Amino acid sequence: MSRFWNPEIAALSPYVPGEQPKIAGLVKLNANELPWGPSPEALKAMRVACGDELRLYPDPDSSELRQAFAAQVGLAESQVFLGNGSDEVLAHAFKALLRADAPVLFPDITYSFYPVYSRFFGLTHETVPLDENFAINLSDYQRANGGIIFPNPNAPTGIGLPLAPIEELLLANTDTVVIVDEAYIDFGGSSATALISRFPNLLVIQTLSKSRGLAGLRVGAAFGQQELIEGLTRVKNSFNSYPLGRLSEAGAAAALRDEAWFEGSCRRLIANRDQLQAELLQLGFRVLPSQTNFLFATHPQQPARALQAQLRDKGILVRHFEQPRIAEFLRITIGTAEQCQQLVAALREIF
Amino acid sequence: MSRFWNPEIAALSPYVPGEQPKIAGLVKLNANELPWGPSPEALKAMRVACGDELRLYPDPDSSELRQAFAAQVGLAESQVFLGNGSDEVLAHAFKALLRADAPVLFPDITYSFYPVYSRFFGLTHETVPLDENFAINLSDYQRANGGIIFPNPNAPTGIGLPLAPIEELLLANTDTVVIVDEAYIDFGGSSATALISRFPNLLVIQTLSKSRGLAGLRVGAAFGQQELIEGLTRVKNSFNSYPLGRLSEAGAAAALRDEAWFEGSCRRLIANRDQLQAELLQLGFRVLPSQTNFLFATHPQQPARALQAQLRDKGILVRHFEQPRIAEFLRITIGTAEQCQQLVAALREIF
Repeated sequence: MSRFWNPEIAALSPYVPGEQPKIAGLVKLNANELPWGPSPEALKAMRVACGDELRLYPDPDSSELRQAFAAQVGLAESQVFLGNGSDEVLAHAFKALLRADAPVLFPDITYSFYPVYSRFFGLTHETVPLDENFAINLSDYQRANGGIIFPNPNAPTGIGLPLAPIEELLLANTDTVVIVDEAYIDFGGSSATALISRFPNLLVIQTLSKSRGLAGLRVGAAFGQQELIEGLTRVKNSFNSYPLGRLSEAGAAAALRDEAWFEGSCRRLIANRDQLQAELLQLGFRVLPSQTNFLFATHPQQPARALQAQLRDKGILVRHFEQPRIAEFLRITIGTAEQCQQLVAALREIF
Repeated sequence: MSRFWNPEIAALSPYVPGEQPKIAGLVKLNANELPWGPSPEALKAMRVACGDELRLYPDPDSSELRQAFAAQVGLAESQVFLGNGSDEVLAHAFKALLRADAPVLFPDITYSFYPVYSRFFGLTHETVPLDENFAINLSDYQRANGGIIFPNPNAPTGIGLPLAPIEELLLANTDTVVIVDEAYIDFGGSSATALISRFPNLLVIQTLSKSRGLAGLRVGAAFGQQELIEGLTRVKNSFNSYPLGRLSEAGAAAALRDEAWFEGSCRRLIANRDQLQAELLQLGFRVLPSQTNFLFATHPQQPARALQAQLRDKGILVRHFEQPRIAEFLRITIGTAEQCQQLVAALREIF
């Protein structure tokens, strides 16, 4: 604590990101990154954009990229908001759209940045327990709130919700904003963007960091009716007029246009997931049903924390959360077929 | 105003950035961008970084780039903070280091984002008038405050301060943070980074958007003693763990290493500034002494607003601020020698 800090700074509990090791050659299954590179068209577009135009500020409204996102999800440009990764989009959404006069609701087991944002923006929050199968039960959210946020599919459980219960929640919860965080939606889930035209209080957030293989670029988006987007834009323009640089704009737009790469990549990832799940089950793991690019798994005989350390000794990184209810689980990002085999071989050696 | 906005959102007065026209072929002297592209080494490094590694999150601490900045200014990595453009760095500094228990002080004529940040973060502020020559008089800032911020050189006046009055202010103002915003420092100013080792309450902010010709990349930095940097880092990690993408890190580090390009570019810019200033004086303008990449000029017979419109009709953009004391001035970014000649020729036609 420094006497030069604004007093509230000492009370913050900053987020701890997944480890980004500086050692080469590790099998990195700990940060839910795609195991192969992004669309070659995106790489080409960015290389072309590496030119003298970088001397110019980007379009503060990122119109071209917003149009590309709008086309992708079947909305208008005015229904799209962009940020420097979906974390920035989430931060602006907490600030602009959630309210301090009642607790913000989110699951007890979920993305660990939500309570950080809640405290950072002076909100209160209540966590709602997942059910006994680690699923979100949205009927538990039908009570007074300053806003509701949950990932679909949820992380780190990987479990997805169909649209019906989300629609039911929106029919019941009409006075505060409901944010559906769809970071992992492209690996088998159903996007709530289909509900936006009917619900003025629905905000859907997506990212290029997972299914588009562009975690290193930092592009996230929010979709909602125009009045929600205008609220986010007011906050953005009170914070940073130019959140997306020219390379992000060029690469993201090209990535969105490359549907063939995208569909092939998602298909391949899902095939690897099915294969790895089968092998983990064979090894005696309990694996939660995943609609994401990771598996959340626990073993009745193998303590999770020790297992994570043993895998690390063998050069394989997976993520463990020292947290009630899930301390015996590991979150394992789906790798290439080869990486998944390395993981399975390592587990066989350990067991 | 939407009923779904957090009530304070309607009260915001978002920043209005300089126009980014979508028409090609304009002479763009309105946003203080460098008139030529960035270091070719930076472009090369970014092209190389356009590869499969973009699937991975960047280093959340941007260690390599912080080391490059530290080497550049003669500080330690722990004394460097990075953000997505210096606007984001400024925003985090307002949040982390300025206090609400007394007004934040800044000049009456200055970067128009400061009052936006002040309101956004729930601070109060008082503006301190520039003197009759449009210079900042730092002895006017020696009174109770929640923090002090000023650009050096100031914008949009272009006038720089030597280090002696900054040092005097720091000797007198020891209880709150003093932020020196050095966006334009490389065009002839003296950087306050030289004072950091002696003053624990001094934060210096710089950007790659002006002198490094990388406005399209979005990289800004703050320098200060470790405890100030830690405060900023707490805020950053409560907002967005990965503000800088991999391309920004690669391009910025290479740009900082290319000293030869940098020195040549600054020299060339300053030569163009001297030349344009001489021609404007000859045309009857009053031109404030500039240590930046722009000139702030007024003409006794030509109303500034009309002049801006006439120049625009001839395809030349300059910036005008509809604001007390400076409504008769134009802010003219220094262009290439050819662009400066086009401006002078256009003015001769108008007069």
